[in-house]
Amino acid sequence: MPFAELRINSERLQSRLRDLARIGATDGGGVTRLALSDEDRAGRDLLAGWIRAAGFELRIDDMGSMVGVRAGSRPAPPVLLGSHIDTVVRGGRYDGALGVLGALEVLETLNDHDVTTELPVALVNWTNEEGVRFEPAMTCAGVAAGRFTREEIYAKTDRAGLRFADELRRIGYLGEERNRALPASAYLELHIEQGPVLEAAGRAVGLVGGIVGITWNEVRINGQSDHAGPSPMHLRHDALTAAAEIITGIERIAIDQDETAVATVGRLSLAPNVINTIPGEAVFSVDFRHRDPAILERQAERLNELVTQVSERRGVRGTVERFWTSEPTPFAPRVLDAIAGSLASLGLPRFDLWSGAGHDAKYVADVTPSGMIFVRSQGGLSHCEAEFSTPEDIAAGANVLLQSVLALANPDA
Amino acid sequence: MPFAELRINSERLQSRLRDLARIGATDGGGVTRLALSDEDRAGRDLLAGWIRAAGFELRIDDMGSMVGVRAGSRPAPPVLLGSHIDTVVRGGRYDGALGVLGALEVLETLNDHDVTTELPVALVNWTNEEGVRFEPAMTCAGVAAGRFTREEIYAKTDRAGLRFADELRRIGYLGEERNRALPASAYLELHIEQGPVLEAAGRAVGLVGGIVGITWNEVRINGQSDHAGPSPMHLRHDALTAAAEIITGIERIAIDQDETAVATVGRLSLAPNVINTIPGEAVFSVDFRHRDPAILERQAERLNELVTQVSERRGVRGTVERFWTSEPTPFAPRVLDAIAGSLASLGLPRFDLWSGAGHDAKYVADVTPSGMIFVRSQGGLSHCEAEFSTPEDIAAGANVLLQSVLALANPDA
Repeated sequence: MPFAELRINSERLQSRLRDLARIGATDGGGVTRLALSDEDRAGRDLLAGWIRAAGFELRIDDMGSMVGVRAGSRPAPPVLLGSHIDTVVRGGRYDGALGVLGALEVLETLNDHDVTTELPVALVNWTNEEGVRFEPAMTCAGVAAGRFTREEIYAKTDRAGLRFADELRRIGYLGEERNRALPASAYLELHIEQGPVLEAAGRAVGLVGGIVGITWNEVRINGQSDHAGPSPMHLRHDALTAAAEIITGIERIAIDQDETAVATVGRLSLAPNVINTIPGEAVFSVDFRHRDPAILERQAERLNELVTQVSERRGVRGTVERFWTSEPTPFAPRVLDAIAGSLASLGLPRFDLWSGAGHDAKYVADVTPSGMIFVRSQGGLSHCEAEFSTPEDIAAGANVLLQSVLALANPDA
Repeated sequence: MPFAELRINSERLQSRLRDLARIGATDGGGVTRLALSDEDRAGRDLLAGWIRAAGFELRIDDMGSMVGVRAGSRPAPPVLLGSHIDTVVRGGRYDGALGVLGALEVLETLNDHDVTTELPVALVNWTNEEGVRFEPAMTCAGVAAGRFTREEIYAKTDRAGLRFADELRRIGYLGEERNRALPASAYLELHIEQGPVLEAAGRAVGLVGGIVGITWNEVRINGQSDHAGPSPMHLRHDALTAAAEIITGIERIAIDQDETAVATVGRLSLAPNVINTIPGEAVFSVDFRHRDPAILERQAERLNELVTQVSERRGVRGTVERFWTSEPTPFAPRVLDAIAGSLASLGLPRFDLWSGAGHDAKYVADVTPSGMIFVRSQGGLSHCEAEFSTPEDIAAGANVLLQSVLALANPDA
């Protein structure tokens, strides 16, 4: 059978998604499977069994990341596909799991059709992508890519004071550094979109051009707290009305930029936060995201200008502190071309978007030509029990992954 | 000496304000003297001593309110003057205390000059004006005026579960119903302004036309919580940006009304209140105040319209619940005339304002012709340790009180 006619086995993939979702299943139809928990161990054991049963070599690295390797016709760094199986608290059945089980499905499809690829093809389950139990997120893809040291991640503790390294050993997944998934010749991550763009566009699958950059800022407004009764409006220095004006201005900064720019005020606290007292202090976060680093910087400048202008006019003191920046990560043209070619050969319309959230691919892309494929999320929902993508959309995404792998793993074809 | 030339003794008044401020004094120069606490008892004991030493009859009513009576030339309901000596946590030295000790000073000034008034003149220290320990505020003026029953206030408990009635008995100030301060022929309350209006106008003393009406409302905005990254601005249903637009609109409702209208959003909470998540819910309070009940109603209508408009445009669900209303209380023309005449006779410019906050006079006014005199607050500050009024301003206010009492207690003069 010509490579272009190969298709994954949708029933097998759905069956495995259901099996994995039983581990840590919540009453509401979701999953809680925190990194290095007993549920994570059970999920890993299930995955390990599938990898071994299919005849792939299973390797566990020093961070607990699991690698399953299907040999190629010549020794070389593999084409690597994967994601993660840890979840947030009361998360969904697809976030991460689709990328790992989709990768397994691609490798098994190659088995089914006795395909020999030039390069090895490997799947990876990266430990602790979510960062819910052990902060930060994407720690073990980050170690493999050189963003973090093993020792700093080993030393992370959860809320109960348990150490990452101890928990990794406890669940039996402390392996060896020589088993790390990187270097690889290319990296592909299939993932649910976790947003509403594909649904709004009527597209099952999207080609992800990269991962947006993020800046996190804290705005602090100090006015004058006073009794709500005796202070006329024109003599007030109300921290909240100043904050409210700034928050609507922040929204405009994003809207006026372009349709991909986003800005979010997610966290806000008032003091004294009492019904009959004018707020004396308002502190809130600002999350700006964009693919263009120059625009990220311009957004930061506009935030500073906005806070200064509103604060001066209203007689309050406003400060902005940018406390975290994550640079934009454009994916590799060679990998994007492979994905685009796969979409075309499958007769799927090309639809480009960027990821607004971080993924393991962000750090892997530091050292490996990388790309991502998004599958439509129903209602744009994710990190919740209602997270859902249809079997048809999932099969479409997995077939794009399969075709992309065939292209990348056979560079001389 | 003609009545018009009588003046209070400023040094004595200042000395007593200092003495009382030592009871419950805080490190920051303020006072914490919660109702029916050991500090309240000590303050009451000091006041009782002064009342008795001056030769006035001390009566304690069934709510613990203290009354000191200076007899007139004929039996009649007295001209009553007073306020409260309980404070908020880390409150100031003048809120309430000035009205009680100013009243005592007026009575002693009458003694000093052997003045005989036609009507008796009495001072009152109302129990639990602040309502910090036992909610609501102004409970015992409220009982005297018939707003609350004795039994419902007796049953109130503080956060430790202690009952009002038990605490009143414990501190030794459970008296008899026949000792209540009302009925009275008139009621006068000298109080610090607790706001910035007199200071902004360059006036030491103000004539208080009444106490504004208040409505308390809760606005609830339900949008859609989503990850801050993958949701484009035009597909969001952000509860906070909707709230921010409404909050700036609420400010405009007050500003567009007239210079006395005020509106305050003092309390706001977000859910989930996480930096990288679009807020799905915002709940906030709205406090409207105005002297005109029709305008209070119009403000409520405009709030409803505003919430509806913004919610529809932004695709969120907005609701408004008005959960408390306090009607405006205009003071009695006869009492206001007496205060205005006193200002004129003292050569002080007349400056009219309304009280934006509640006071014991609000409930007393239900059953007694009442009025209030405000003394300039430095920086408009109150309910804080920095609360301050100059001795000169306090003396001016107390002299207005003295002259007003002389007019009201000598109706045939």
